[in-house]
Amino acid sequence: MKFNKNLESISTYEAGKPIELVVREFGIDAKDVVKLASNENPYGCSIKVQNAVGAILANMALYPDDSMIKLKNAISLRFGVESSNVIIGSGSDQVIEFLMHAKANSSSKILVNSVTFAMYEIYAKHVGAKIIKTASQKHDLDEFYKIYKEQKPEIIFLCTPNNPTGDAIDRDELFEFIEKIDSDTLVVVDGAYMEYAIAKDSSKEISAKELVNKFSNVIYLGTFSKAYGLGGMRVGYGIADEKIIKELYKLRPPFNITTLSLEAATIALSDEEFVQKSVTLNFEQMKRYEEFALEQKIDIINSYTNFVTLCLNNNQNSTEISNSLLQKGMIVRNLSGYGMNAIRVTVGTKDQNSRFFELLKQCL
Amino acid sequence: MKFNKNLESISTYEAGKPIELVVREFGIDAKDVVKLASNENPYGCSIKVQNAVGAILANMALYPDDSMIKLKNAISLRFGVESSNVIIGSGSDQVIEFLMHAKANSSSKILVNSVTFAMYEIYAKHVGAKIIKTASQKHDLDEFYKIYKEQKPEIIFLCTPNNPTGDAIDRDELFEFIEKIDSDTLVVVDGAYMEYAIAKDSSKEISAKELVNKFSNVIYLGTFSKAYGLGGMRVGYGIADEKIIKELYKLRPPFNITTLSLEAATIALSDEEFVQKSVTLNFEQMKRYEEFALEQKIDIINSYTNFVTLCLNNNQNSTEISNSLLQKGMIVRNLSGYGMNAIRVTVGTKDQNSRFFELLKQCL
Repeated sequence: MKFNKNLESISTYEAGKPIELVVREFGIDAKDVVKLASNENPYGCSIKVQNAVGAILANMALYPDDSMIKLKNAISLRFGVESSNVIIGSGSDQVIEFLMHAKANSSSKILVNSVTFAMYEIYAKHVGAKIIKTASQKHDLDEFYKIYKEQKPEIIFLCTPNNPTGDAIDRDELFEFIEKIDSDTLVVVDGAYMEYAIAKDSSKEISAKELVNKFSNVIYLGTFSKAYGLGGMRVGYGIADEKIIKELYKLRPPFNITTLSLEAATIALSDEEFVQKSVTLNFEQMKRYEEFALEQKIDIINSYTNFVTLCLNNNQNSTEISNSLLQKGMIVRNLSGYGMNAIRVTVGTKDQNSRFFELLKQCL
Repeated sequence: MKFNKNLESISTYEAGKPIELVVREFGIDAKDVVKLASNENPYGCSIKVQNAVGAILANMALYPDDSMIKLKNAISLRFGVESSNVIIGSGSDQVIEFLMHAKANSSSKILVNSVTFAMYEIYAKHVGAKIIKTASQKHDLDEFYKIYKEQKPEIIFLCTPNNPTGDAIDRDELFEFIEKIDSDTLVVVDGAYMEYAIAKDSSKEISAKELVNKFSNVIYLGTFSKAYGLGGMRVGYGIADEKIIKELYKLRPPFNITTLSLEAATIALSDEEFVQKSVTLNFEQMKRYEEFALEQKIDIINSYTNFVTLCLNNNQNSTEISNSLLQKGMIVRNLSGYGMNAIRVTVGTKDQNSRFFELLKQCL
């Protein structure tokens, strides 16, 4: 059977190894496996969320409220925008998928940072669009502007803080950059880790409200998968001018968020204390990574997120090291696929981090 | 901002009114609102599923196992196929979305029954494909074949039992039909309500295993939203030759099923007793609809599902009647949008059905 031509260039996405597979493959006891590979919240999720979801388990039989009125109201309130400025996706991934299908096609160009979230490129391939990457590893907005002028891309992705490097763009630079972009180019500001960045350095804070009030061609993306501790529930959102939201809504499949996920995300927004506590603990533990890196003479990228990127030395190989770690039951993300001799490690709990330091020392 | 041209012909999907909106709009107490509009399982979901999901609420923080190994194994076992024959979607809707994007594009034709599940047409519009409909209201496979020969569609959708009419195609007729279709045309057999049909009449049973063993160009769709009572959890599946599955997998977003939904669906498959009980109660209650229709001199379509379609008489208007019912707190589906002067009613519990009969009598 013949399929559409653009599928030829798409390879199936391989997610990080789940704990179960490591248990089976290496015969390690499940309780000895530590996964610091997917930037989940190591403190789990709010107990208020667990209680609320536990109370409505019988509702699994009922289709989700497709108006998502409660969650949309909670998000609008949180960001000071209108409900008509909000679209909710099955992870912010799905909002990326919507905007790719709404704005791009096989004759489009998409501008992204050289090293950034892999899904931008994957969804670009779905529509057959051409990906253009910067040369710089850090977001260099001068380089972005130069390429923009030459290539006139349909969409520009700015990921801040950036995954998988952890660095962030200054607010003022970002706003100056967007002002120079014509109003028919869609600028995506992906703030999946923004809750962490804000706590570390207010000059990195990008306000969705300010973006939407100022620009008709920008969409801000956020997620419940990181600081809110709901990686398993698949809820993300986009905030933009209502004209953009209206077009994306046309591509939204009905009932794209489960009944339990709607409840979980709504209640998560009412427990900011949990988020703040998670963020505080995160940066306390991150200091230990900075000290460890200094001690081991490994470069570490200054991170505004809940992960750190360790840039290994020339005599160290990220693929070999991450494989050795895996065999010891420590799952981290090897960045060789991004052209970097580096590993990305989620900042875990105190014990998880201690274990990581111990195991990594054995591999160096 | 300009968007892709095909968006111009897409209107935003409007789901049925959730109970909350009826409460707000008509000031009816929530406990007096009955929703028989979305073909949910009126007996809820298995208590085993509720207990299993309740036990892993802390796992909401963890990304779903993207290999879906447990659920895929459970589905393969249930249907006697290989795990490589299975793809899991966020509802069978999402599998429809995958196959549309994999096989169709703006120069494609899609053949569907005149009255059938609305999402086929919606996803066809997403890729700009042309929808061709039969004239017959019931699936007439001779008509399908005639149109197929003339138009050479890329995809043919057969929905059996059919939504929103409830009638079903005979197994032998369906197999004879597919044998005449060339191997580059994808035939979709949507069995969302198959658990009900099998219980009522074995000649309507379409075996996914038999389809896959016999044809390389067929995909069977199933769902956990109906008989399994998990409408809120968004889990469906496609079963096909592994060559088809491999292509669809390229379009699957990672983590498309939540952590709790994977658990719910896996455990649901281990409690067939719940399903069988739901199906038995369904047909016991459906007899009351048949008697009611006879008594009220309304035509009813012989249904192989958990809903009935009441075809109203000329002096009765489905829009007026469904609005009157809504104001009394009874939510049903008006089929005027399908060109039918009819209402579709989910067969509810004994009490829900008694209430429906009482209220409908007031409206006739």
